[in-house]
Amino acid sequence: MVSSPSTSPATPIVSKRYELLTLGDELLLGLTANGHLTFIGAQLGRRGVLLQRNVTITDEADAIARQFRESWASADVIITTGGLGPTCDDRTREVLAEVLGQKLVFDPAIEQAIAERFVAFGRKMTPNNLKQAYKFERGEVLPNAHGTAPGLWVEQDGKVLCMLPGPPNELQPMFVEQVLPRLAKLGLLLDREAYIQLRTAGIGESALETRLQPIFDKRGDALSVAFCAHQGQVDCRVSSPSGKLSLAQLEDVAAECAQLLGEDFVGYGHDSMAKVCADLLRAQDKRLAVAETATGGLIAQAFTEVCGACKFFAGGVVCCSNDAKMELLDVPECLLLQHGAVSAEAAVAMATGAAETLSADYALAVTGFAGASAKNGTGGNPVGTIFIALHAPHGVWSKALSYPGPRQTVKSRAVNAALDWLRRELVRAQKGGAIPLRRTGVMQ
Amino acid sequence: MVSSPSTSPATPIVSKRYELLTLGDELLLGLTANGHLTFIGAQLGRRGVLLQRNVTITDEADAIARQFRESWASADVIITTGGLGPTCDDRTREVLAEVLGQKLVFDPAIEQAIAERFVAFGRKMTPNNLKQAYKFERGEVLPNAHGTAPGLWVEQDGKVLCMLPGPPNELQPMFVEQVLPRLAKLGLLLDREAYIQLRTAGIGESALETRLQPIFDKRGDALSVAFCAHQGQVDCRVSSPSGKLSLAQLEDVAAECAQLLGEDFVGYGHDSMAKVCADLLRAQDKRLAVAETATGGLIAQAFTEVCGACKFFAGGVVCCSNDAKMELLDVPECLLLQHGAVSAEAAVAMATGAAETLSADYALAVTGFAGASAKNGTGGNPVGTIFIALHAPHGVWSKALSYPGPRQTVKSRAVNAALDWLRRELVRAQKGGAIPLRRTGVMQ
Repeated sequence: MVSSPSTSPATPIVSKRYELLTLGDELLLGLTANGHLTFIGAQLGRRGVLLQRNVTITDEADAIARQFRESWASADVIITTGGLGPTCDDRTREVLAEVLGQKLVFDPAIEQAIAERFVAFGRKMTPNNLKQAYKFERGEVLPNAHGTAPGLWVEQDGKVLCMLPGPPNELQPMFVEQVLPRLAKLGLLLDREAYIQLRTAGIGESALETRLQPIFDKRGDALSVAFCAHQGQVDCRVSSPSGKLSLAQLEDVAAECAQLLGEDFVGYGHDSMAKVCADLLRAQDKRLAVAETATGGLIAQAFTEVCGACKFFAGGVVCCSNDAKMELLDVPECLLLQHGAVSAEAAVAMATGAAETLSADYALAVTGFAGASAKNGTGGNPVGTIFIALHAPHGVWSKALSYPGPRQTVKSRAVNAALDWLRRELVRAQKGGAIPLRRTGVMQ
Repeated sequence: MVSSPSTSPATPIVSKRYELLTLGDELLLGLTANGHLTFIGAQLGRRGVLLQRNVTITDEADAIARQFRESWASADVIITTGGLGPTCDDRTREVLAEVLGQKLVFDPAIEQAIAERFVAFGRKMTPNNLKQAYKFERGEVLPNAHGTAPGLWVEQDGKVLCMLPGPPNELQPMFVEQVLPRLAKLGLLLDREAYIQLRTAGIGESALETRLQPIFDKRGDALSVAFCAHQGQVDCRVSSPSGKLSLAQLEDVAAECAQLLGEDFVGYGHDSMAKVCADLLRAQDKRLAVAETATGGLIAQAFTEVCGACKFFAGGVVCCSNDAKMELLDVPECLLLQHGAVSAEAAVAMATGAAETLSADYALAVTGFAGASAKNGTGGNPVGTIFIALHAPHGVWSKALSYPGPRQTVKSRAVNAALDWLRRELVRAQKGGAIPLRRTGVMQ
């Protein structure tokens, strides 16, 4: 048995030590989530690097100097975020230059880029912006297409320091377009994805491993496999750190796995479940409608996040009250009175109503008790009870699900279950297969 | 002038050094956001503590030992999250015990609690769960009402170590109900909120400071003021670290500020804008409907997150296509053809349609181009153009807004602008004031 810890990557392929320093009191005060860790950690993981440490510290100069000195002593690559702006608490540039024994030098090219940006936005440049025009005397500049503060790049002592500005919309394109290629060129990470990722749904981590084991066994230790469970899905990552398997051979392994998994295989790569459903809908020229109570707009939100959603997303309805269900979705009042708003019957009527009202081919409906307060669970259904209905061109069905856990968990698992059900039906429709009529009981 | 860095707390009132160690490869691989930093950082900030450092490291035993040794040498309080579970990669307990020179001892009371939990859920307890029944020989146990792994508490060398399990629904109530009171009892943080927070909207940080300065000046250095800008709002925190002002005097300062701010004052404390609107709607026995395109369900989501939303939230419609607007909201086709779907006229028709269809007193509608791709901006309106309409019992109005920045920023700022507009109208309605008829131009 290959036994990989559930969330570890395939043995990191690149053995360099990476550290991320995220600067800012707003992170330590919980005012802003540390999205830089999530983004940079994932990007590095895809290139074979397991980020070894992320340290978040205050904007205080002494704390920055102390931490940077310690990190620089042991890391091969240090990435910093934040503290490059024009105001007086943006001191990172000066502090790190001192630790590295470098001078900061004024760069007229940066000044010009900043000035042009102010002209383009019709604003006046205040003098403190010139602070951002300084770079390390032995260093380079990473242009910032979306803000005034450029990134800074230093190679010294056989190590790399890369400083990036704090706003995510500035940092993220700089990281992908400039930082990754530079690091790859220095051999500090792979110049392609480190593994082939198979995204799966509806199957637990250990069951997945057991099912795929015969395929893995054929390749022996030439193959490395890792499983990453997140948000109700499990990703399987296959790689060959030793290089014994070529990319073509790895692609064969992945294709065998996908074949064996059948409908539990969602797709290769990193696409969200909503994106996968959207692609299937577009390929079949079908439109989707959504009716939600317990998930409060999350499913509509997932689909409208997909680029060009208008092409396949007919619309969504969020209805808490029975009035809204009757008014917007033509759910009969007698049905709600007889079966209750949280029932298989209500879910089916909501899905059908959404499809008809919005002239959609497919419709998803979710009703249930996601709430934390037990008093929500009425009519014999405990909190965590969710009914999902799927309306398709050839029929309508409902499922009862039961999730333990807090409100947020129930909601996100209900969203994933609904999307996965739609995905499976779209895959079957694409293959021309008929859907077996079914009405399942409570599933864990 | 009081000059506080934009995101610093009022001078930390408690000078103890707190560090947070978050453990787990899943954080470093970007599979899970580091929500523990956000939650614990905010909770400590409210009690007068500025968390000094958060370090995220891998599950590897050596890395944990090295980091803990370093942190224990300088910190007064160390909080760890994760690594307390039953599986083989949960090694934190053992590693930290070794560093502290303590033995782990089996605690039959913990075993019984775990066994009872398995019985309650009707599952079989596997032997590896007993690992969670060990505590430090000189330490205490923090019971976990929502999971199997209890927290652990150690006081040693004049310092505190507090170990918490990783799942947020287990950690968060333990932190609030057990950890905060214990730390307060030891004098390591305040036993009440460290400041009075005034939440504001529609006014920038520097303008806010200028406006409130006369009130602050009267109190001299007895008063400490900090501003925290986040998600389009600015919070103002007033405190008296020296203790020169009593709580009653601080409350007077806050009341003066609230009075002076008028409608820009959202409320005291930490309530979200949706919660504030919900309270106003409930107090006036009014119901709200929502119609969204550009915000794709985010406004409906914000309101359904509020407990008991059915009481005031009539429902929401997410409509990308013109068909949906016509079908669900009775928006006339000729209006959409004449003015376009992204127009003040469409927004007004959507708001009115939502209010009428859903029998609501108030309705918010948002339409616009949030998208990243410039080709979305058609009909003379650039990307970032948003129209908001508000339907109230006494009229309907629209506003054009223009936001630079990426899709996510445009969406969240549009949500905040819509909610804030509703809030202002509800406040005026409560006071019995009439709303001046207006139709504003493009606002930045």
